Amino acid sequence: MPEPFRIGLLGRGTVGGAFADLVAERADHVANVTGLRPEISGVLRRSEGDFDEIVANSDLIVELIGGLEPAREYVLRAMAAGRHVVTANKQLLAEHGEELWAAAREHGVQLRFEAAVGGVVPVVRVLQESLAAAHVERLHGIVNGTTNFILSRMAQTGASYEEALAEAQQLGYAEADPTDDVSGKDAAAKMAILARLAFDTPVSLAEIPYEGIEHLTADDMEYARELGLGLKLIGTAERVNGGLSVRVHPAFLYGAHPLASINGPFNAVTIESPAITEITLSGPGAGGPQTASAVLGDVVSAMIPPASGVGGTDSQRLELISDVTGAFYLHVDVADEPGVLAQLAQILGLQGISVKSFVQKGLGADARLVMVLHPVLESRLFAAVDLIAGLDFVRARPRAIRVIDEEF
Amino acid sequence: MPEPFRIGLLGRGTVGGAFADLVAERADHVANVTGLRPEISGVLRRSEGDFDEIVANSDLIVELIGGLEPAREYVLRAMAAGRHVVTANKQLLAEHGEELWAAAREHGVQLRFEAAVGGVVPVVRVLQESLAAAHVERLHGIVNGTTNFILSRMAQTGASYEEALAEAQQLGYAEADPTDDVSGKDAAAKMAILARLAFDTPVSLAEIPYEGIEHLTADDMEYARELGLGLKLIGTAERVNGGLSVRVHPAFLYGAHPLASINGPFNAVTIESPAITEITLSGPGAGGPQTASAVLGDVVSAMIPPASGVGGTDSQRLELISDVTGAFYLHVDVADEPGVLAQLAQILGLQGISVKSFVQKGLGADARLVMVLHPVLESRLFAAVDLIAGLDFVRARPRAIRVIDEEF
Repeated sequence: MPEPFRIGLLGRGTVGGAFADLVAERADHVANVTGLRPEISGVLRRSEGDFDEIVANSDLIVELIGGLEPAREYVLRAMAAGRHVVTANKQLLAEHGEELWAAAREHGVQLRFEAAVGGVVPVVRVLQESLAAAHVERLHGIVNGTTNFILSRMAQTGASYEEALAEAQQLGYAEADPTDDVSGKDAAAKMAILARLAFDTPVSLAEIPYEGIEHLTADDMEYARELGLGLKLIGTAERVNGGLSVRVHPAFLYGAHPLASINGPFNAVTIESPAITEITLSGPGAGGPQTASAVLGDVVSAMIPPASGVGGTDSQRLELISDVTGAFYLHVDVADEPGVLAQLAQILGLQGISVKSFVQKGLGADARLVMVLHPVLESRLFAAVDLIAGLDFVRARPRAIRVIDEEF
Repeated sequence: MPEPFRIGLLGRGTVGGAFADLVAERADHVANVTGLRPEISGVLRRSEGDFDEIVANSDLIVELIGGLEPAREYVLRAMAAGRHVVTANKQLLAEHGEELWAAAREHGVQLRFEAAVGGVVPVVRVLQESLAAAHVERLHGIVNGTTNFILSRMAQTGASYEEALAEAQQLGYAEADPTDDVSGKDAAAKMAILARLAFDTPVSLAEIPYEGIEHLTADDMEYARELGLGLKLIGTAERVNGGLSVRVHPAFLYGAHPLASINGPFNAVTIESPAITEITLSGPGAGGPQTASAVLGDVVSAMIPPASGVGGTDSQRLELISDVTGAFYLHVDVADEPGVLAQLAQILGLQGISVKSFVQKGLGADARLVMVLHPVLESRLFAAVDLIAGLDFVRARPRAIRVIDEEF
């Protein structure tokens, strides 16, 4: 029986609930990876729990209260008591980050905050670890999923800002009072944290000029399309004349920019550095389960020295499967004679293969049939290809290429 | 004066040279982050250096020899001597990973290998750390930059496979003998490593069916375009019926798939998990400087427990710059009268602003001027906007939106 790893949980709203569920669900797996079994040892809510008691009975504190106070006080007291802290509180870090990081150094504990920035996109870890030795030149981010959803809808449907906002609210991507998101303030808080990590320079929210998306119109979107541009709410942190500029504003992006193709309630960050050119990280903006997953990733990292090796595989090993189901594109060169299609259809039908779309190119001796097939076991598809290759009117071995289709 | 952190370097080819240069260039910065100053304490080449002596005089070994032997023997001996090891050797890990990871666990040392997979894309770290607690369902990767460049050129220019390969060779993206890349074997080796990390299941290169791109034609690309698909060499590792399937083959992707927009000599990986939906990481495939940067990131991680806090900022702090240069889109509603353009041009000219492109929409009282401006200091642009807003014939405050243009 592995030893328990005790997590004191501050706050139990949407994210807190999702986190508690996830800990229960993944406890066995984490125990296998780390040798310790995570459990929630105490919960502090507005009406329940005693902070000092929770700290005394925990190895690590997860702060999901949000806001500045009492979150700041609790995080400081937990670290002073020697506890690692994981938080998703961007506001707290954007306003009091220096004080909190100094306290973590002073008390020799970890303060992890992947969930505070970028949803599930692991940009904090990549900046702190992969790029710890890199000279970062510039960072561009789409760090607010709400505004990216609204702008994507305006671009896709020609909707006005007001219409797209209403749709975002209906779908749960925007709050009833969307001000923090649409004004750019939420993005600015995240950029303060990212700029601190990428450039080792303290930046507070108050120092970041930000501009929102409320004034954008369907007209802007239309002109953008004509000019071959995409319109996004972009956070920028970059070296300028030996200094640092951090700002948030709507910006047009050329179509080839890695952030131009990020649509819907997604976050993405592009980091540029001379040594690496650029890397881009993207994923869904924060929802409850996503934020909980990022928090648990931080908890696991605090439990073990990461990458001290790859774990054993005693209980985990999966069987290797060689024959899988997939959709295919099939290209057959045929002499265009009566009965060709019927014979092809019969062979496909016998193997249980159905055709999703079909095009004939050319005529007579130069005819080519191009099909996209519904998913089928690969062994059946290859059997069909062998049979088709043997037909008189087929002039070359059919070409089969797999199709990855998220719509299936 | 910070203590030295001694790196023994095995192999000094293109990557080894770039790594040695990078260590010299970034030593001060790393010392500031970690408190230890990295230095190359010994180099083993074919004709120079003694392995045992290099190990004795090092804190960590970087293996950049490549191939199976003597790389395998050296890595095992270094770990047995208690040294952390960083390697970029995918072949070694794909064929002997289990033996090496077991040795790392046995000797309590770190074996890091970010540079072995995915160029600068930090997929190893994300799988080992951010997703240590996640249930990964599927991983799709473009893990070979050479083939992605060739397929991108075929799609963009209509070139044949042979023509695109020749271009890749000219540009240094493909080797004189491109077999390992174009056959899919290189991608399969990387998928073996990624599958091991994502699914805790040992997978050797010999168990992975792979198919290359040599047989693809310009015709396939053309049909793909007609059907709204992109064609990529895709590595897949996914749970299937309680087991695991790992394979590499060309595949058509629907336009909305995150990997469909990855063009040129780039790598990208999409990781799907119920808790996080999906995240995508992308960046350039490995060149010498990129691989060296990934190796140094691993070295720094081995030097310090990552994220034990955010570092101090004594020597690093940058000045915050508030007025920066940027390109703008400017939208002016005007009454279409004689002299309008002249007056606008005069105001822009006085602020040193030049126009890159220009469109007039509508006529008479309904005219709108849309311009994309060359980069200008923001304060000057805003001064121009104020002046333009004051003109008689301008019917609303001009709308200025920034343009991020990588072509400038």
